[in-house]
Amino acid sequence: MPTSPSLFAAPPAVPGTSSLAAHYQAVRAQSVALVQPLLPEDTVVQPSLDVSPPKWHLAHTTWFWETMLLQRFAPGYEVFHPEYAFLFNSYYNSLGSRVNRADRGTLSRPPLADVYRYRAYVDEHMAALLARLAELPPTATELVELGLHHEQQHQELLATDIKYILSTNPLAPGYLSEELRVKSEALKSGNSSLLTLHSSLSEATWLAVPGGIYAVGHQQEGFSFDNELPVHEVLVAPFELQNRLVTNGDFLRFIEAGGYQQFQFWLGEGWDLINREGWTAPLYWSKTAEGQWLRYGPTGLAPLNLAAPVAHLSFYEADAYAQWAGARLPTEAEWETAARYFEATPQGGNWLETGHFDPQPLPADADPTQCHQLLGDCWEWTYSPYHPYPGYQRAAGALGEYNGKFMINQLVLRGGSCATPESHIRLTYRNFFHADKRWQYTGLRLAR
Amino acid sequence: MPTSPSLFAAPPAVPGTSSLAAHYQAVRAQSVALVQPLLPEDTVVQPSLDVSPPKWHLAHTTWFWETMLLQRFAPGYEVFHPEYAFLFNSYYNSLGSRVNRADRGTLSRPPLADVYRYRAYVDEHMAALLARLAELPPTATELVELGLHHEQQHQELLATDIKYILSTNPLAPGYLSEELRVKSEALKSGNSSLLTLHSSLSEATWLAVPGGIYAVGHQQEGFSFDNELPVHEVLVAPFELQNRLVTNGDFLRFIEAGGYQQFQFWLGEGWDLINREGWTAPLYWSKTAEGQWLRYGPTGLAPLNLAAPVAHLSFYEADAYAQWAGARLPTEAEWETAARYFEATPQGGNWLETGHFDPQPLPADADPTQCHQLLGDCWEWTYSPYHPYPGYQRAAGALGEYNGKFMINQLVLRGGSCATPESHIRLTYRNFFHADKRWQYTGLRLAR
Amino acid sequence: MPTSPSLFAAPPAVPGTSSLAAHYQAVRAQSVALVQPLLPEDTVVQPSLDVSPPKWHLAHTTWFWETMLLQRFAPGYEVFHPEYAFLFNSYYNSLGSRVNRADRGTLSRPPLADVYRYRAYVDEHMAALLARLAELPPTATELVELGLHHEQQHQELLATDIKYILSTNPLAPGYLSEELRVKSEALKSGNSSLLTLHSSLSEATWLAVPGGIYAVGHQQEGFSFDNELPVHEVLVAPFELQNRLVTNGDFLRFIEAGGYQQFQFWLGEGWDLINREGWTAPLYWSKTAEGQWLRYGPTGLAPLNLAAPVAHLSFYEADAYAQWAGARLPTEAEWETAARYFEATPQGGNWLETGHFDPQPLPADADPTQCHQLLGDCWEWTYSPYHPYPGYQRAAGALGEYNGKFMINQLVLRGGSCATPESHIRLTYRNFFHADKRWQYTGLRLAR
Amino acid sequence: MPTSPSLFAAPPAVPGTSSLAAHYQAVRAQSVALVQPLLPEDTVVQPSLDVSPPKWHLAHTTWFWETMLLQRFAPGYEVFHPEYAFLFNSYYNSLGSRVNRADRGTLSRPPLADVYRYRAYVDEHMAALLARLAELPPTATELVELGLHHEQQHQELLATDIKYILSTNPLAPGYLSEELRVKSEALKSGNSSLLTLHSSLSEATWLAVPGGIYAVGHQQEGFSFDNELPVHEVLVAPFELQNRLVTNGDFLRFIEAGGYQQFQFWLGEGWDLINREGWTAPLYWSKTAEGQWLRYGPTGLAPLNLAAPVAHLSFYEADAYAQWAGARLPTEAEWETAARYFEATPQGGNWLETGHFDPQPLPADADPTQCHQLLGDCWEWTYSPYHPYPGYQRAAGALGEYNGKFMINQLVLRGGSCATPESHIRLTYRNFFHADKRWQYTGLRLAR
Repeated sequence: MPTSPSLFAAPPAVPGTSSLAAHYQAVRAQSVALVQPLLPEDTVVQPSLDVSPPKWHLAHTTWFWETMLLQRFAPGYEVFHPEYAFLFNSYYNSLGSRVNRADRGTLSRPPLADVYRYRAYVDEHMAALLARLAELPPTATELVELGLHHEQQHQELLATDIKYILSTNPLAPGYLSEELRVKSEALKSGNSSLLTLHSSLSEATWLAVPGGIYAVGHQQEGFSFDNELPVHEVLVAPFELQNRLVTNGDFLRFIEAGGYQQFQFWLGEGWDLINREGWTAPLYWSKTAEGQWLRYGPTGLAPLNLAAPVAHLSFYEADAYAQWAGARLPTEAEWETAARYFEATPQGGNWLETGHFDPQPLPADADPTQCHQLLGDCWEWTYSPYHPYPGYQRAAGALGEYNGKFMINQLVLRGGSCATPESHIRLTYRNFFHADKRWQYTGLRLAR
Repeated sequence: MPTSPSLFAAPPAVPGTSSLAAHYQAVRAQSVALVQPLLPEDTVVQPSLDVSPPKWHLAHTTWFWETMLLQRFAPGYEVFHPEYAFLFNSYYNSLGSRVNRADRGTLSRPPLADVYRYRAYVDEHMAALLARLAELPPTATELVELGLHHEQQHQELLATDIKYILSTNPLAPGYLSEELRVKSEALKSGNSSLLTLHSSLSEATWLAVPGGIYAVGHQQEGFSFDNELPVHEVLVAPFELQNRLVTNGDFLRFIEAGGYQQFQFWLGEGWDLINREGWTAPLYWSKTAEGQWLRYGPTGLAPLNLAAPVAHLSFYEADAYAQWAGARLPTEAEWETAARYFEATPQGGNWLETGHFDPQPLPADADPTQCHQLLGDCWEWTYSPYHPYPGYQRAAGALGEYNGKFMINQLVLRGGSCATPESHIRLTYRNFFHADKRWQYTGLRLAR
Repeated sequence: MPTSPSLFAAPPAVPGTSSLAAHYQAVRAQSVALVQPLLPEDTVVQPSLDVSPPKWHLAHTTWFWETMLLQRFAPGYEVFHPEYAFLFNSYYNSLGSRVNRADRGTLSRPPLADVYRYRAYVDEHMAALLARLAELPPTATELVELGLHHEQQHQELLATDIKYILSTNPLAPGYLSEELRVKSEALKSGNSSLLTLHSSLSEATWLAVPGGIYAVGHQQEGFSFDNELPVHEVLVAPFELQNRLVTNGDFLRFIEAGGYQQFQFWLGEGWDLINREGWTAPLYWSKTAEGQWLRYGPTGLAPLNLAAPVAHLSFYEADAYAQWAGARLPTEAEWETAARYFEATPQGGNWLETGHFDPQPLPADADPTQCHQLLGDCWEWTYSPYHPYPGYQRAAGALGEYNGKFMINQLVLRGGSCATPESHIRLTYRNFFHADKRWQYTGLRLAR
Repeated sequence: MPTSPSLFAAPPAVPGTSSLAAHYQAVRAQSVALVQPLLPEDTVVQPSLDVSPPKWHLAHTTWFWETMLLQRFAPGYEVFHPEYAFLFNSYYNSLGSRVNRADRGTLSRPPLADVYRYRAYVDEHMAALLARLAELPPTATELVELGLHHEQQHQELLATDIKYILSTNPLAPGYLSEELRVKSEALKSGNSSLLTLHSSLSEATWLAVPGGIYAVGHQQEGFSFDNELPVHEVLVAPFELQNRLVTNGDFLRFIEAGGYQQFQFWLGEGWDLINREGWTAPLYWSKTAEGQWLRYGPTGLAPLNLAAPVAHLSFYEADAYAQWAGARLPTEAEWETAARYFEATPQGGNWLETGHFDPQPLPADADPTQCHQLLGDCWEWTYSPYHPYPGYQRAAGALGEYNGKFMINQLVLRGGSCATPESHIRLTYRNFFHADKRWQYTGLRLAR
């Protein structure tokens, strides 16, 4: 992303068929790489309904290729196992019945080794299909692109689900292998001041965006999901946006000011939630008996990095912080508009390059090794509903279940996180979660 | 409303202090009148978490006057009973603890007679306060207006909660007293064709609204809630809206076409909901062994009136119908804009006068006697979130809990229903409910 | 009971047909008398799944007469209302479907006045039936006796359900009418020392019962439930029983010794229960900010009477107390055997007459006016399962559902309480509740 | 067991210290052998609250040795890992806090390999301790014996939990390794008639036991749990017991006669249970589209063996069957008495040797390979509560939590199953489960 000539250019995607095959291999390998530091036991469990076992992700993404590509475009293809469609369908009603989501963590079989066999079998057939992709209808190419982005979405879920799985264990094991751990420590030692000095982070400044009619939605060549379309105009009033994300240090001030104990900052459902769940800090934060704040991260428990962007907030916590700070969350139109506006200005370009807004190799957890291959800092909650853009039409068939059926009761997040694959980040990308979810890398940037 | 010179004029509200006192008396009397056909036993029960006992509504609205006006502006005022603040606070954290909402239906005391004594006591003190309102700070007058609108909101809830309470009883008693029942039958006999003839209702037509920048929000003199402000501009693309609500007859075609059995019309959470709850028709509809459709209404069970607007739909059902019909729900900006646009055109004015869009004395249930004092046909689901307008600020104190804290996970409805008090209807009024609620008079109008 | 020549004689029951008719009238009048101090609103609510609305009890007992007697033995009898069988069947699968138990408190109709009309209608027809009872098959007479005992069982439930309903109201109204309240105060003033002096109660003494083979079960003439039969022999080892019930004062010592905080006294399921529910004292006990213990009773909140039997204990609390006291609960065979044994001895007879074991007019709440017409002190938990006696056979038809189908997961209680109708008490009577229930008058007597 | 000179002799247990060490090794090895056919993934999951992950069983039994023996009697012993006490305590409040039972299946760490290291570490230290056992206080030897029986109890749970875990997987994998599977097929082919012929099983006959006073409880030398004591006398009326367990074929007749659809055979809570859960057959039974009955067993799905004892019944199903058959379940006193009585008679001895009552190598599943090392056929539900024997005292400390705190709301089962380790079977053994549980090998024998 930092190397793109424009923020709104598509990621370096997919010119010809041969590079598409290479991209396929790279994406598929990345899924396996994410699971590589785990033990087989880690790949089975589901400590929360939101979280899926890593083994399931590896198999589900493979099932997607088998069902959407091989069964349609590879004559004579035989499925690897007749039961896998039942086991690894996620939510497609049009593709048959499936295991209840809450039961994913009760399934020890197929074991991880069989899932790897499944992946190899499908990859082999996909290689053959990709080799003759030019002969197939254009739909096939479109589905390949979709499948790659689908797998990348699950890579982000793999990263966050693994983090959750390991963190809920009383042993609180770190995710990084010994080798990576050493590398991580070395990297961190280079900016160890981040771990202690609050003042090391410059104060946030406000950047003004003039009002006007702006176009919103995916306008470049290259892939986008259907929910980023159609491009449409919105009228945006003048507003200001901060030049950086809210940090752990900022958020700590909110906590210490009693923010979690004062209902007036909270939406009603949020106030009920934090009291019911006993939340008094972001997910993964804990306080030692001596009063030191820790956060669980890829190396296990570690001191809180005050200068890093605060992550793992629910929408309610993000909104309460903004209320307390006398500001608000941006809308998604404002967020996208600000990016377009600043890209075209000298000082804006500078801001975009150097600030947190411009996704950098520094991950939200300040553990570069976890996310060294990824762009983005943190998903940013907007105060916009995940509703269809004007003129949006759900596709027919299984693809119509990909995005459209979720367009209710969720909020849009923008920006990408340290767990988002680099070629999967777009500034028109509409991520979406329910307001109470916080196991993703979700933070905020203030607007007013 | 039909007699108003403009749809956007405020309701006939409240010029001087003496008429405010008269308006107070009228509104308070109306609450009692709604409960009058009930037996004491009916005023106690709570067959659903959404529904409150009528006795509770009568007391809660009274507590509002006592807390917001008398305790602040009537020196020496003594509360009627020290426990009532605990019993009848609805959701104001700033005003102390309160009975758990789920337990409202377990409280037999105070009995209805005591609640009437409470009302009389408060009304007497309010009469004295209203007589010297001109001497009090302007806030007092504003709070009186708010209190009247608050009580009118609860009148709509009284009407719908009573309907729900009686309908869940296996005896399915009607709400109307004998006298009203006779009157209702007489009225219905005059348009009995409605009960049988599908063709009696003209086909809906599409009315075009040009795109442009429109102002949205409360712009006239007179009262509005804070959530209708600030007035702000929106860019609306050209669209079309139907000249009438979707009717029972229309919706029956959707049912008979298998609409409740085909997931592709449904949002995911809606599909889960109707399957979990076993919904196959709107609330209050039932089918006899002989295949005749009935609906529960103010006279008890009665044949379905095919020409009446369909009511008691969840957002999910409204949206699924629209998907099936190849159309969509409007946004709230479109809805308000259409009204503004057509008011200013010759044909539009005509449409607004004669169509269902213009609230008429014909209630959603086609039982004029139930709602003869009310305007509006049916609340219309929009596909817009109940979020703050740009620039909205929550008020400080208890008033800040009136509207602002609910601005998440709900959808805006527009238009008012047969259960909405006439002077409470405004075209800028933003009603809001969660997508799964359907015990209100909630229907839809198609857009495209 | 105190006037019976033997504890094991049947209650003064039912010699000829005319006195049976008189007994019918007396029993039926007593049900109404229990509800008389209530307001209509009080008769509707159901603040716990265990509790039924008083209106429901009045109607259900009437339905029993209509279904078991009038529809079988009164030719041409027409039911009062065709829906009442659905509304007021309690649990008889053989008698058709019924309202879900959890929904009893949501039914405002039929109102109390209609239930009284229902009672009058059925009583009128029952009077005619009772007048010609001699001409009917013997089954009819047996069913009349069963119906009377059934109604008396519901009278005890009425007393305890009403207590629960009023106690859960934040206003904590008393049950007694003004007239009864005055009378109660007068009676209590005569033994006011009970309210303050711990030492006024003599220490409990242990009474020895020799081992041997004893007969257990109903052996006299007169009515018993089928679960009291067959008479059978049991081998009982020598044991001792205390001459009085455990008192509030005794139990307070357990509380003050930390009994609710030490798991070693508790059965595992009991420990989980008290921690889940936050129980730290018997039901209806509360402690003021000044540290005074109160209990809710028929006059509302009142100081705890240390000398009265402790009541409203779950089995778990009774058992934990016994563990703490270094004793145990008796079995039901021991309990019945002790009564038989002491009746035949001089000192035992004395004990039975003067101790709490012999049911007296002093009620558990030490509020004679609440229970002035009742015998018994408190139901005593035994450590015996409610299982069938050897040779027990469930009856065919609806009567087979009366007792037999509950013979699992419940414990037997013996003795009767201040809420048990006098003519309903028998020493072979097997009352039964789940171990977690405590809204009945349930206490304990120690054994070892 | 078949080789014991008397049924009531203790199992071949534990004469001197060296053989105790050998027995320790054998028992510990057996736990590992049970898990050996599984994959690491299988050892993690918990598809039901009743079921624990196999990995947890392996670690918990090890924690027991560490906590009860090594930390008390091995000076200087260092625990393997300080967190394991929290992770692997089952229910001992006296031994500190622990993982919520419902969360056992969310813990991927420690992995299986670490649990094996834990076992090796503890076994090594236990070997040293056992070598000097004669020098330690007698309590140490008693705790070793308890620990062995504790581990054997968990071996039975391992067998049944593994069966449940594999059965809930849509792939329905078999438990047996390939080698064992072949052996099992060979064995079954020898009595293949069992799989098809109903008539191959002789009709059950009734064996009469005279009434009298019998001693109940553990009376021999050797180990017993505290709940088998004290020995006490019971008076038993004359009764008859069947010479064999109820079979799958018997139970199939009950199903085909509509037994699951007729409430009159069922206890009330059982009727609610089977309707709520949709049970229409024992656990692990299923019916193909062609109407053939299958059962899930150690080789996966297989045809139902009509001649084998029916297993995996809840108490409710066992009791309903008995009601339907015009008989009843025995009490535990009857069951134990019958065994004592027949052992002393010529024909009885014969019966005990050849019938199912005498535990044989033929397992309940008719899959000898599954249980080839085990005695017993099936646990037999009795209609006796799991209450303390007269005079029973809970031990102080952690041992008091072993048995005593469960003595409520459970029923006694007798006899042992194909999953019970041979040296763990005793005829005085009181197994206990809640009435709704059926994942153990639980069946029934009729009495009358």
